[in-house]
Amino acid sequence: MKDLTQTDADALIATLGKAARDATLVLAEASAERKHAALIGAADAIIASETAILDANSEDMGFAAAKGLAPSMMDRLRLDGPRIRAMAEGLRAVAAQPDPVGRVLAEWDRPNGLHIQRVATPLGVIGVIYESRPNVTADAAALALKSGNAVILRGGSESLNSSAAIHAALATGLRQAGLPDAAIQLVPTRDREAVAAMLRAQGLIDVIIPRGGKGLVGLVQKEARVPVFAHLEGICHVYADGDADVEKARRVVLNAKTRRTGICGAAECLLIDRAFYARHGAVLVQDLLDAGVEVRAEGELAQVAGTIPAQPSDFGQEFLDKIIAVKLVDGVDEAISHIRRFGSGHTESILTQNDATAGRFFSGLDSAILMRNASTQFADGGEFGMGAEIGIATGKMHARGPVGAEQLTSFKYLVTGDGTIRP
Amino acid sequence: MKDLTQTDADALIATLGKAARDATLVLAEASAERKHAALIGAADAIIASETAILDANSEDMGFAAAKGLAPSMMDRLRLDGPRIRAMAEGLRAVAAQPDPVGRVLAEWDRPNGLHIQRVATPLGVIGVIYESRPNVTADAAALALKSGNAVILRGGSESLNSSAAIHAALATGLRQAGLPDAAIQLVPTRDREAVAAMLRAQGLIDVIIPRGGKGLVGLVQKEARVPVFAHLEGICHVYADGDADVEKARRVVLNAKTRRTGICGAAECLLIDRAFYARHGAVLVQDLLDAGVEVRAEGELAQVAGTIPAQPSDFGQEFLDKIIAVKLVDGVDEAISHIRRFGSGHTESILTQNDATAGRFFSGLDSAILMRNASTQFADGGEFGMGAEIGIATGKMHARGPVGAEQLTSFKYLVTGDGTIRP
Repeated sequence: MKDLTQTDADALIATLGKAARDATLVLAEASAERKHAALIGAADAIIASETAILDANSEDMGFAAAKGLAPSMMDRLRLDGPRIRAMAEGLRAVAAQPDPVGRVLAEWDRPNGLHIQRVATPLGVIGVIYESRPNVTADAAALALKSGNAVILRGGSESLNSSAAIHAALATGLRQAGLPDAAIQLVPTRDREAVAAMLRAQGLIDVIIPRGGKGLVGLVQKEARVPVFAHLEGICHVYADGDADVEKARRVVLNAKTRRTGICGAAECLLIDRAFYARHGAVLVQDLLDAGVEVRAEGELAQVAGTIPAQPSDFGQEFLDKIIAVKLVDGVDEAISHIRRFGSGHTESILTQNDATAGRFFSGLDSAILMRNASTQFADGGEFGMGAEIGIATGKMHARGPVGAEQLTSFKYLVTGDGTIRP
Repeated sequence: MKDLTQTDADALIATLGKAARDATLVLAEASAERKHAALIGAADAIIASETAILDANSEDMGFAAAKGLAPSMMDRLRLDGPRIRAMAEGLRAVAAQPDPVGRVLAEWDRPNGLHIQRVATPLGVIGVIYESRPNVTADAAALALKSGNAVILRGGSESLNSSAAIHAALATGLRQAGLPDAAIQLVPTRDREAVAAMLRAQGLIDVIIPRGGKGLVGLVQKEARVPVFAHLEGICHVYADGDADVEKARRVVLNAKTRRTGICGAAECLLIDRAFYARHGAVLVQDLLDAGVEVRAEGELAQVAGTIPAQPSDFGQEFLDKIIAVKLVDGVDEAISHIRRFGSGHTESILTQNDATAGRFFSGLDSAILMRNASTQFADGGEFGMGAEIGIATGKMHARGPVGAEQLTSFKYLVTGDGTIRP
């Protein structure tokens, strides 16, 4: 799927980028009501276009099957009535959130009478690069629009027809609300050179958000000349402290590993304090084994029947499967050292009833999300109350953790005087 | 001054970068009191080292004179008693600011009982690249330390001895407070290859802040593979609306242009509403002429005696001198269009008594700083009440406007449950 030359691809992205930039002038001033109306209109249009979307999706599924796409990928590509209704619901949920633009983030007065406000503004143009999951077309567009940004969407090549059908519904919503079509644009080609062109589109695209597996995100992080909000891996740790409540610990460990194993917030490593082990034995390991998890255990823990000995490479590994690495540590400081060394800065949870130990964990680590007595599976914008998320970022610039509409804004200063001059 | 190979320079920056990264682990957990003590200790050490700093500065001045440095650059390089005391005062002023790390930026509860906090954290390692102004060594280090960041300083080659003497005083403050030396490091070479190595130090340096003229900033923005907080130009506009109070307008225009002409917040273009001109004539232009400003006037305004006709290139030009471009416009919308086209996104001011018109100006423009009835010369971190600034950013990612200690922070989420699991 490479026919476009680099020059052609750059020209294509420049055309989309310029239209998007023009749209930002309208979007930045669009009222909350107008954006809300566009999202509700888009949700209605998605429901009304169910047949067209399903037809487009069948075409994509046929193409993907012929291409021999893996069953898990086929499942992500597939749309049906409930999935289409879920997309519409997602649009409505984002519409229902408070408008993040124009919020007064801070304000203060100066002794000379100047009044200063810091006010939220849209970021500008957002590029979203994702795999063949058509629902991301609606989710990403909704968050971008809510935050007053123009968006350029580039989904996986197998989902182009589905995405185009969804995009048509989104465009209906925009048009009904009197917002420009270029607020939400879909890259109209399967050619991969278009992705490369997006990654080098400095000045046209303000930030790129990749959504997908490590292969996609790694490529984007490596090649992008534009800022990127992303996480490469979610190597989440759970640490069971000596002062943990054993029943809470059992509940959280099991949920953190097994609720869903393929998401970035799934626990990949369990660290058990020797004090916990002395008090409660291998109960956490046994629970995991009983739940059918493959437990790769280090040292003493490998003596628990049913475990298999851990290899060094099992620590710092994102299994995304029913597998976990477990290890005994001497207290919270060794847990912190281990996580600093092997973690990916995504999400870690401590299980303890001891406030001081929890405080130590919270201050000694710098992952995007730190939890106490809660499952790492809560690492999600919806669970944080953001309505939806466009992804989770582990970088420290601008956005961090779940990226919702609020994180897609910048700010400007508004300064009011009364003929005030600087001495 | 190029002797280092690219490999040598990369190795040097890697050594500094790794030491800085190690220091961040200590800095991130350093108490507000400890950082305060280090800043006060550094201020005292600067006063105590006056002789050593002046000696080092004489050496630099001799070197620079031999090299034939321009008089304005010589003046920026030169230190004396008052300037050394001002540096110490700057350190004390930053020390007196509230500590930006650990602030709870937001917190909320979820229906499932989770309590979520967003808490400010340091960014990490900051690289500062500046010209031969030794005081920046102290200013930049103070803001970085206040915000819990490690900093790598690379000043102009003519100021290396002065910067090293100042750096020694800063190190005394760190040591007295029990903070690691590597919290504040100076690149120990004049070789320019070290700058190039900083710009490509992804993973070692989290953000680069260039302080200096357009040449330096342009180079950094073009070459950096690391995020940059900067502004390339300050092409600031003042718009005198038909509903302006004429006396306030006269005061602000004169101050915005003439208080200091060489700073980025100086006005470079005056837009006069035809309604203002019909009512008050060329009073603003006359004031500027009377103050000895060269007025480059477009259209009708060029008939005012003493003005010279503007060339098209005078609009969108950063004069940094006693020169201004002036032009008549038809109301706020034409002013907005002009500024969108010719501005640099730094600072613009509207002079009006009309709230609706001011609101239109504030919402229709997206410069980092928008003002009403106030001089653009207030575009400054100190004037904003930030204690000090490390620069002014016109980008929209992370920091924008005056960059003080608060803008040098990121955040993390702290989530507390009670054995809470996700259904």
